[in-house]
Amino acid sequence: MTVTAPAGFEAAGVAAGIKASGAADLALVVNRGPKQAAAAVFTSNRAKANPILWSEQAIVDGTVAAVVLNSGGANCFTGPAGFQVVHRTAEAAGAVLGVSAGDVLVCSTGLIGEQLDGDVLEAGVRLAASGLAADGGADAARAIMTTDTRPKTVVVDGAGWRIGGIAKGAGMLAPGLATMLVVLTTDAELPAEVLDAALRRATRVTFDRLDSDGCMSTNDQVTLLASGASGIHPDHEDFADALTRACADLARQLQDDAEGAGHAIAVEVQGAVSEDEAVEVGRAVARSTLFKTAVFGNDPNWGRVLAAIGTTRAAFDPYEVDVTMNGVRICHAGQPDRPREEVDLTPRDTHVLIELHAGDATATILTNDLTHDYVHENSAYSS
Amino acid sequence: MTVTAPAGFEAAGVAAGIKASGAADLALVVNRGPKQAAAAVFTSNRAKANPILWSEQAIVDGTVAAVVLNSGGANCFTGPAGFQVVHRTAEAAGAVLGVSAGDVLVCSTGLIGEQLDGDVLEAGVRLAASGLAADGGADAARAIMTTDTRPKTVVVDGAGWRIGGIAKGAGMLAPGLATMLVVLTTDAELPAEVLDAALRRATRVTFDRLDSDGCMSTNDQVTLLASGASGIHPDHEDFADALTRACADLARQLQDDAEGAGHAIAVEVQGAVSEDEAVEVGRAVARSTLFKTAVFGNDPNWGRVLAAIGTTRAAFDPYEVDVTMNGVRICHAGQPDRPREEVDLTPRDTHVLIELHAGDATATILTNDLTHDYVHENSAYSS
Repeated sequence: MTVTAPAGFEAAGVAAGIKASGAADLALVVNRGPKQAAAAVFTSNRAKANPILWSEQAIVDGTVAAVVLNSGGANCFTGPAGFQVVHRTAEAAGAVLGVSAGDVLVCSTGLIGEQLDGDVLEAGVRLAASGLAADGGADAARAIMTTDTRPKTVVVDGAGWRIGGIAKGAGMLAPGLATMLVVLTTDAELPAEVLDAALRRATRVTFDRLDSDGCMSTNDQVTLLASGASGIHPDHEDFADALTRACADLARQLQDDAEGAGHAIAVEVQGAVSEDEAVEVGRAVARSTLFKTAVFGNDPNWGRVLAAIGTTRAAFDPYEVDVTMNGVRICHAGQPDRPREEVDLTPRDTHVLIELHAGDATATILTNDLTHDYVHENSAYSS
Repeated sequence: MTVTAPAGFEAAGVAAGIKASGAADLALVVNRGPKQAAAAVFTSNRAKANPILWSEQAIVDGTVAAVVLNSGGANCFTGPAGFQVVHRTAEAAGAVLGVSAGDVLVCSTGLIGEQLDGDVLEAGVRLAASGLAADGGADAARAIMTTDTRPKTVVVDGAGWRIGGIAKGAGMLAPGLATMLVVLTTDAELPAEVLDAALRRATRVTFDRLDSDGCMSTNDQVTLLASGASGIHPDHEDFADALTRACADLARQLQDDAEGAGHAIAVEVQGAVSEDEAVEVGRAVARSTLFKTAVFGNDPNWGRVLAAIGTTRAAFDPYEVDVTMNGVRICHAGQPDRPREEVDLTPRDTHVLIELHAGDATATILTNDLTHDYVHENSAYSS
């Protein structure tokens, strides 16, 4: 049911003809109300795609009636013509749904620097609108897939209210979000500013800590729509916690389906003086190509972990650090501890624990190994 | 002739038995004077190997009589026992050469977190000292190789004086130097502070702009030894220029022999407001795994270039940027320009020109593509 699990939403996913393959490539998620409160977070990349430029303005009033999402083209670095295509898409959705174009968000994903065909988008929006259904969430989840091998969906239940979500993203998973498009829905009744605070709190510790390949997308967008159809006003903390669980679940699915990944690696940093420094240390490891290739080779090369964290400005003494991989402490106080041979890195889920012994803060970064399949997927095809 | 091309130097390279393969693994470079002025720069990684901790102290007085370099082990994160091995190595060289151990620098390269055998190092130093020769530079260049496929050497002639050099490094080539060990020699007569200034000026625009895989080593060291044997005091500018040429030549050799590289990529940034920002922009591109895999696949994916530079804080408008690959401008003012098909990325030497249109500063970062061979070399073998 995904985004249509909460009451008040309809969705559709169709093949609009954007992808040459003929696969589904356009999704529509509509909030039927009675409320249309919304919040959204966007890529922090300064190179923002045209749909981001549009949606950043459209969300300002905290009201969103619908989200149009397309795969098959990022509509980024396509100039005024590209922006016009976004505008036309929103106008088409607004017209067919009887809402203002300014209440329609647009999300795109695919190759940068290629124009999308406005006629195709407009016809796709009409086709999707004609197929809107209260159980259309699964179709929408499939229509936004690019190199994803499976749709990503989530449902979290509250006390009389619910959160549903869909996500795509398997390439540029990185900080400040990633090429991820996420739509979350809820039938809880909450004003836009509460949604915004909850969404920022949730993404900060979930999507923002997913760093598959260190590359930041131009098109990331996470949108939260609230219909109020349950008539229930949940406690703000409870709602934010549930939203965080939903985002964490989707982030974990994105990590698990990252392009060409052989391992899903959790880099847990403990004993930092601040959460920000824990994140900095974890991210340095997650971005070390030497560390990532070692994990691909099932090599518990803790020297590459220490070489990576030595490049950060976080407070710690490299010669007091412990490193544990999959439960075996192989480095203690910056020196060899248990034999490397005791570490089994063959399971897909990999845990690297770095104890800095500098403070009490902790953070976990989710990443992937660097594999032949990653190189193949990103060199053999334009994306 | 390499480091023994300038007058006043002897060198040797021997198989000390550090490498299980029996290949040459220990080099000795000796400055016979009459002067023994020197300068050195070290990795900026906070996780510094034991030979770095030793050499940073030994260089303080600006006098160096000899440099011992070993491959087959980094002697990093090996604790007090590892530091003791460095001390013993320097003592052994001092004793056999009749100089103070405090005038002996030590450089190591290889796997982190493994103890070196002090007996083996000490015997190796004696063996090397017995083989010192005025034409021993080529042997020294070979003995410091790890995954290098060929030795790297340079000779630059001045007016009656000369600079020679050897280098190794094919793995962690990154900012603040890389796993590179470099020894430069000159028979010019210059005091240590002039050598230091010239060396920092040269490395800043050469080795520091070589960023093969974004990973910074724990063991980088570049040492410059001046014998004064020519009796000539060159103009300081002339000397710094010649030293920069020597370093640029070696940096280019390191780039060309980087692990698993299919392309040697020069990322040239023009129109930045400052040289620092030009470097920041170039480095962001050089570190984008998506850009690097695209080049491996001969795909002129300029969208990945713009997505990478959009993550920097440098002053420019992404929608004014031009990108030219191998002479074809494929992006103009943040929009598609010439067709991608016109770009031929099959040559090994690849030129990416990024015009920011924000100022007058420029910088070039040297990097490599991300290939199957890179993943293989760094996953199948511990290093």
